[in-house]
Amino acid sequence: MTTEALFTRWLARTEQQLDTALPDPDTTPYGLHRAMRYAALGGGKRMRPLLVYAAGQLFDADEALLDAPAAAVELIHAYSLVHDDLPAMDDDELRRGRPTTHIAFDEATAILAGDALQTRAFELLARAPLAPALAVDCLRTLATASGAAGMCGGQALDIDATGQLQTVAELERMHALKTGALIRAAVRMGALCGGAGQTDLATLDTFANALGLAFQVRDDILDVEASSEQLGKTAGKDQAQDKSTFPALLGMDGAKARLQTLSLQMDECLQGYGEGASALAALARLTVQRTH
Amino acid sequence: MTTEALFTRWLARTEQQLDTALPDPDTTPYGLHRAMRYAALGGGKRMRPLLVYAAGQLFDADEALLDAPAAAVELIHAYSLVHDDLPAMDDDELRRGRPTTHIAFDEATAILAGDALQTRAFELLARAPLAPALAVDCLRTLATASGAAGMCGGQALDIDATGQLQTVAELERMHALKTGALIRAAVRMGALCGGAGQTDLATLDTFANALGLAFQVRDDILDVEASSEQLGKTAGKDQAQDKSTFPALLGMDGAKARLQTLSLQMDECLQGYGEGASALAALARLTVQRTH
Repeated sequence: MTTEALFTRWLARTEQQLDTALPDPDTTPYGLHRAMRYAALGGGKRMRPLLVYAAGQLFDADEALLDAPAAAVELIHAYSLVHDDLPAMDDDELRRGRPTTHIAFDEATAILAGDALQTRAFELLARAPLAPALAVDCLRTLATASGAAGMCGGQALDIDATGQLQTVAELERMHALKTGALIRAAVRMGALCGGAGQTDLATLDTFANALGLAFQVRDDILDVEASSEQLGKTAGKDQAQDKSTFPALLGMDGAKARLQTLSLQMDECLQGYGEGASALAALARLTVQRTH
Repeated sequence: MTTEALFTRWLARTEQQLDTALPDPDTTPYGLHRAMRYAALGGGKRMRPLLVYAAGQLFDADEALLDAPAAAVELIHAYSLVHDDLPAMDDDELRRGRPTTHIAFDEATAILAGDALQTRAFELLARAPLAPALAVDCLRTLATASGAAGMCGGQALDIDATGQLQTVAELERMHALKTGALIRAAVRMGALCGGAGQTDLATLDTFANALGLAFQVRDDILDVEASSEQLGKTAGKDQAQDKSTFPALLGMDGAKARLQTLSLQMDECLQGYGEGASALAALARLTVQRTH
């Protein structure tokens, strides 16, 4: 099966999982239920679920085991976007080419929808057809990656740093938490469901670290070079918000060189896995080359 | 040991658990870490943790097993207060006699602190010294109670109903979700840790249902009869915000009669348990009689 066909199948599984995991839009409280669906079914790239499936494939994991971790990590991602877009946070009105959740609904509903999406992620894992020890491993992985020592902490560092000049090390730490932690969790949960051992988990962690950073370097480059139409969100926001970025700190050529180094690092991590790693390798390539 | 001495010990365990579960206030991101501690260590009544310990005691549960569920349910409660107090939600500036978290810090930090407190609750359970199957049971119980079909859904119903006249049935449904779900989860987790069977779980669920409702009826009565100073939060808010309350729908005498009925229901549930239920019975009494 081609990588493209695999991705199509995994994306369909993800949408199916999310659809059934989200509450009925025609029962009360309507606003909350509809806002949750709006935020999570709004056509994201689903990179994190794809990483779960691709990492699982490396160890021949049963895809039925990967469904809940894949949907759960996407629910966490979706909740974080809803809250990050709020007026008190990044104050963004456009996301994936559509009004952000607090614009489409209202602020209170957006806050609650984000809260309930987060809860649903953990509930989904706690209800998944996983052996209890594996479920607890996945829950611990996802919770650790999402909280103060992970994604939430990264967002706080980002807010604290706005308007200040960061060093490259500070910028990398912030991104390692803000976006990297969840990407690492996605890869790790997939590998855990395939029964991966410590050595493989460590190698994949290095891979996921590089992928998360590459994603962010590419994001910063696109924010400068692409249009809002291409991005489906407001372009040029980093500069407007006075945020440190890789192009700003390293220059555009330096940022592109950094991206190239990360790409090579990812290739190295996957070298030992042969054909089984083709889906992960394709995701690495897409991350480095993406145009939106 | 007297019930009072038990409560003192359980409260000390709760504070200790919360203190170690919360991030270091002297590491970055400072604001997030300090806001999380401010919100969760701000001297609440700790009713939910006490319910976990008291329900566990009914089945001679090892207190070391109860620590994580007790702290986790309080972290969920603490996060919900931070978000409910936000300007876009109830817009409250006073809580437990102190400025609310978004006033003491800022709105963005309060949103993130609430998010990270929720995550920490699930992380704590996923890291607890519980057998995996029991950990998953507790995680499923707490997540189900916290999300769209529980606490979050109740808060959404509350917002949707503001300014509208609710029926008693609607009001009870809203409270059964908004505050009841978490109270039921506290009791259930304690019982699960003690190895309770389905019959006991069902009886205790009836008990917890009555307790949650009694808590809210008493809250509505206090909002009318007590001063802000006694409450540590703004009194008379329900009427000011045009919210349906039990005294408004049933009259003050009717609300007090309802409270009495719930009290008798709780006694009935505990009848078969003898001395082991003295802590739960004391919590029921405190709920019905509390003055703040």
